[in-house]
Amino acid sequence: MELHILEHRLRVASIPKDGLPQFTHSLIKLIFLPTKTRCKFISLTETPEDYTIIVDEEGFREFPESDHLSVADAVWLALNVVSGGGSSSSSQPIGVTKIAKSVIAPLADHNISVFMLSTYQTDFILVRERDLPLVMHTLSAEFTIFRVVNGEAVSVDNLGITNGFVKPKLAERRIVHPLSSPSNMFCVTSLDPVTLPTIATLLMDVMFYSNGVKDSTTGSEESGHIRFFSFSLIEGYISFVMDEQTQQRFPNNLLFTSASGELWKMVRIGGQPLGFDESGIVAQISEPLAAADIPAYYISTFKFDHALVPEENINSVINALRVTQAEKQ
Amino acid sequence: MELHILEHRLRVASIPKDGLPQFTHSLIKLIFLPTKTRCKFISLTETPEDYTIIVDEEGFREFPESDHLSVADAVWLALNVVSGGGSSSSSQPIGVTKIAKSVIAPLADHNISVFMLSTYQTDFILVRERDLPLVMHTLSAEFTIFRVVNGEAVSVDNLGITNGFVKPKLAERRIVHPLSSPSNMFCVTSLDPVTLPTIATLLMDVMFYSNGVKDSTTGSEESGHIRFFSFSLIEGYISFVMDEQTQQRFPNNLLFTSASGELWKMVRIGGQPLGFDESGIVAQISEPLAAADIPAYYISTFKFDHALVPEENINSVINALRVTQAEKQ
Repeated sequence: MELHILEHRLRVASIPKDGLPQFTHSLIKLIFLPTKTRCKFISLTETPEDYTIIVDEEGFREFPESDHLSVADAVWLALNVVSGGGSSSSSQPIGVTKIAKSVIAPLADHNISVFMLSTYQTDFILVRERDLPLVMHTLSAEFTIFRVVNGEAVSVDNLGITNGFVKPKLAERRIVHPLSSPSNMFCVTSLDPVTLPTIATLLMDVMFYSNGVKDSTTGSEESGHIRFFSFSLIEGYISFVMDEQTQQRFPNNLLFTSASGELWKMVRIGGQPLGFDESGIVAQISEPLAAADIPAYYISTFKFDHALVPEENINSVINALRVTQAEKQ
Repeated sequence: MELHILEHRLRVASIPKDGLPQFTHSLIKLIFLPTKTRCKFISLTETPEDYTIIVDEEGFREFPESDHLSVADAVWLALNVVSGGGSSSSSQPIGVTKIAKSVIAPLADHNISVFMLSTYQTDFILVRERDLPLVMHTLSAEFTIFRVVNGEAVSVDNLGITNGFVKPKLAERRIVHPLSSPSNMFCVTSLDPVTLPTIATLLMDVMFYSNGVKDSTTGSEESGHIRFFSFSLIEGYISFVMDEQTQQRFPNNLLFTSASGELWKMVRIGGQPLGFDESGIVAQISEPLAAADIPAYYISTFKFDHALVPEENINSVINALRVTQAEKQ
């Protein structure tokens, strides 16, 4: 298999819920006006805690200086596993399950923290740029590694790169985090970028003006519902994660859904903000899922992590994760 | 004829060119998400100097507190002349010419300053709320005056209201301001509000992201072109004033144009910011136009005034205005 190191140099940032209006101008430019910007990687995820933004340097420059923006202290690079001859096959197990053993577990074993972004199209594994030599060393046994340069995948001679760092001891992964599962169900979907302008006002409403809105059809958070909406526009591809109630606001037949039109339940990881330094969180979740062959999407945000699993698997997933946690404690 | 005093309590404000991003969030809500706001009167006009906003109190509350917002120190009310039996006829002379003698001149004679906003649908004459008794006294000879209350036009017993003020001496209108005429041509147009979402991204681009863009087809301001774009959404009706080059960015057949598809030339009034206290500026322009029976739209902004006259009349208009100015000096 091939591992591609993409050329976007990414920043991960958090905007507090009431700080969003300061950034609406920049976000609209990055999301709706592609000809006005050189940004090629923008992701915006709303959770009850904040808005998490992942954006390349070109996009980051569009944001105003603001006390409201918390920025993780590193440049991140996105890794992408490409199966077979350069394009991923849709018959593969999807999401983080597919890469749990080959990527997530080895990185966790080497104490490398990762930030995950699953999309409709693929799964991005973000690692700190400064960890790249160790990442490449760790994954070179399993993968042919390419680095994308000016849009071209160039094979990496990793011997030269893996010199010059001290190989750390294998980490013991002991830390466990509380899990919870909101009651709403989610879909992972996409859209032809050509049709994005036709839903611009709706999408702006959902992304920028629906914060804290009590929706009578979905109930409040007391009913176990959670506010969670994720949008990404990466190299021209659009991806959404939204709950069933939000999906119903979109016109029929505009959003792509998988053939089964399946819905996903969420597992939230973290009782308090997870930070960026701890490694092994994604592994803690993805390994039991891989062992049980349960597909899963995985979205890290600034404060918490989120896995999406098929509705019918949610109980077994929660049980399996709790067993794993009990063993580690 | 009837004069309607509308119930919107309006604020007139100015945003500097580089301050707009702070207000994009609020403006998008007011312009594109009508179900999210109780605002019924919003107008945004970009000139080379600034963005002028006219907005009702409900809309004004949406704006963040900001050093970047200059607000004229009064509440303004909009007057609207209704011809005949309640609906204006399109065969009438249009714009400020129609009301020059009956409204504009008498108000100027009584030293009442006005702020004009012509739209595709009608012409709003804004007066300060505190001037209303004098306005009603001044115009009661010519008009049956109605005040709109909860959407209903209620006849005004103006005897009670016109007591209690000192009738000022008739003002001599001596002040003259420099005139200029940009080389670009403008259209006054509208749109079915139902189709507004379909051009949301284009309209956002034009309104929020085209400031200072050098457009190779229009040339720079050195060529005599001016940046001028006006949008209003008033009681559900949309109106635009835009130049020919901007109009060409819109899809065919979406914008309403008058049967003749005519283009208008602009006369800009003011060598330096006009302020809000001087009366008679609109009269200075509209009276010669009315005398020559030349239709005109008129848009006041925070710093300058703008008249639009038919392309074929621009030279005679400029000449007529210069003669008038020479007589007054």
